[in-house]
Amino acid sequence: MTTPTTTATTTAELEHCIARDPGSFRVLTGDRPTGALHLGHYFGSLRNRVRLQDLGVDVIVLIPDYQVITDRDTAERLAEYTDGLLLDYLALGIDPARSTVFCHSAVPALNQLMLPFLSLVSVAELNRNPTVKDEIAHSRQSTVSGLMLTYPVHQAADILSCKGNLVPVGRDQAPHLEVTRTIARRFNERYGQVFPEPDILLSAAPLLLGTDGTKMSKSRANSVPLSATADETARLIKGATTDADRHITYDPDARPNVSSLVLLAALCLDRDPHEVAAEIGDGGAAALKRTVTDAVNSHLAPFRARRAEYAKDLTYVRSVLRAGNERANALAEATLDEVREAMGAFR
Amino acid sequence: MTTPTTTATTTAELEHCIARDPGSFRVLTGDRPTGALHLGHYFGSLRNRVRLQDLGVDVIVLIPDYQVITDRDTAERLAEYTDGLLLDYLALGIDPARSTVFCHSAVPALNQLMLPFLSLVSVAELNRNPTVKDEIAHSRQSTVSGLMLTYPVHQAADILSCKGNLVPVGRDQAPHLEVTRTIARRFNERYGQVFPEPDILLSAAPLLLGTDGTKMSKSRANSVPLSATADETARLIKGATTDADRHITYDPDARPNVSSLVLLAALCLDRDPHEVAAEIGDGGAAALKRTVTDAVNSHLAPFRARRAEYAKDLTYVRSVLRAGNERANALAEATLDEVREAMGAFR
Repeated sequence: MTTPTTTATTTAELEHCIARDPGSFRVLTGDRPTGALHLGHYFGSLRNRVRLQDLGVDVIVLIPDYQVITDRDTAERLAEYTDGLLLDYLALGIDPARSTVFCHSAVPALNQLMLPFLSLVSVAELNRNPTVKDEIAHSRQSTVSGLMLTYPVHQAADILSCKGNLVPVGRDQAPHLEVTRTIARRFNERYGQVFPEPDILLSAAPLLLGTDGTKMSKSRANSVPLSATADETARLIKGATTDADRHITYDPDARPNVSSLVLLAALCLDRDPHEVAAEIGDGGAAALKRTVTDAVNSHLAPFRARRAEYAKDLTYVRSVLRAGNERANALAEATLDEVREAMGAFR
Repeated sequence: MTTPTTTATTTAELEHCIARDPGSFRVLTGDRPTGALHLGHYFGSLRNRVRLQDLGVDVIVLIPDYQVITDRDTAERLAEYTDGLLLDYLALGIDPARSTVFCHSAVPALNQLMLPFLSLVSVAELNRNPTVKDEIAHSRQSTVSGLMLTYPVHQAADILSCKGNLVPVGRDQAPHLEVTRTIARRFNERYGQVFPEPDILLSAAPLLLGTDGTKMSKSRANSVPLSATADETARLIKGATTDADRHITYDPDARPNVSSLVLLAALCLDRDPHEVAAEIGDGGAAALKRTVTDAVNSHLAPFRARRAEYAKDLTYVRSVLRAGNERANALAEATLDEVREAMGAFR
């Protein structure tokens, strides 16, 4: 498979390129196995993955199990979270016949790219990366580990080991991806053309806040997991922070908490948030939360039914990962062979 | 194999432990494939390796082919240099039935240790390492690469992937090894006992200068390669820098160049350098150089004869590396399994 890089300069242009020739794109994306996927993930990235798959793009989903240790002291509950991710993917429509799910720890060839890749970036460049600075500031660890500093290089190895040429990310992750592009470009300049310089598909993630009014996060227990029951969902939304104004409006700047709830309902109902707010009108927070709860539970009902079915057959679910690991291994081995050939003389 | 760490605090104590129970030690050592091994390597480390092997220590010799790119822009002539190293090892008496020679690029499991290991050291610790500072100062590259900064962590992966518990190094390399010991200790504290904390066997490398009076280096063309012919050896020694004083003495501080030549002869003849110098007396530089040339050529003659024999059968020589790669792979895979088990839940 050739993996050309487009000359698209806007997201719209890039989407046009994808729609015209989806088979020429390979997406590398994924989720850390550190908790349950929630509505923020769903509207921010998961839906988009399934859309790209259904367009005909080769979608590869990485569960970076090794990387969990970059900001956690232990890798507890890794197996449980990994099962959860697999159930979510399958229930959302990730199709193992067309897409690939694999685990970092199952693909040794991937990490062998670290040596040449580390040689292609300077420590100054790694220190400058704003996302790394931010991650360091929000880290639970008191010192900056070598792993955290080199995180963008590991990400480059993830993406380039399978020659991903399209990476959908939020705006905050874009600087990381520049390191991947830099490494691909420098490798090609020095050793000959091996890697695509991946296009960054900026995702317009909707601004959904957690139930406590802060950023929704799978490790902060402030989100509605996709796997929650209808009752759990009702309870979580009931506990969400709102404000004192009974009249419901959609005004993200002035009323972030209420607007986040309105937006969530609107996304589930595929409607305009202003209309949703207007319909609730003077119903107050209670009516808003009933609307949101009903919208979320209706929207997720088919997903949850499929998830429950898959959960009965974990043997099958895990076989999807094994098959994905095999394909990812084959891709990474082939890439590593090309790298060795290009660098010359490795036996 | 259990790989205990001694409580030896001096080199003499450590040598005593080795002599008492050589089978409990596994050495990890090696040479970069960046040129031909020379007399400095021979008296500084190669002889010692064969000695340890013959004592009954499990000697593993790594040819770090990937690491060549840490301070070279390309990995030119890698296959040629690797063949040369193999010929040198075999001719010196490294016995494939008892010792193991392997290449970095042939052991993928080794690099998978990089992720947990990088998480166990801070960037501050990596920046502090005096050997890294020195390597950076002497590097041919204008900026510090991520690979150079993380070099001691790669070295930890090399050593600990095969659970080496004894590392013979010169005094300048000792700070690197402290990073390996730190990583082993922190891993064991956090995840349970997996790694030995390797003992550092400080080697008393004789101070042999290059023929130009600077440090002998395989990349500076100022050394006598072990593989040189007798004539080449004579020519190289004839070109060595001396001084204006015809009377030959052994005084390393006041007369470093002359004393280095005296020492080289003395090492080859297994005699005291003062005696060697006294015998030459007023013979001047010409007599000194004749003595050195004869001593080197006589000492190396059996080695060179064996090397020429092995050079006729490169198929066999390369099969030694293949067998070594297999054993190193098995050791690294077993270690990686233990690491995953200790860290919990990797599938």
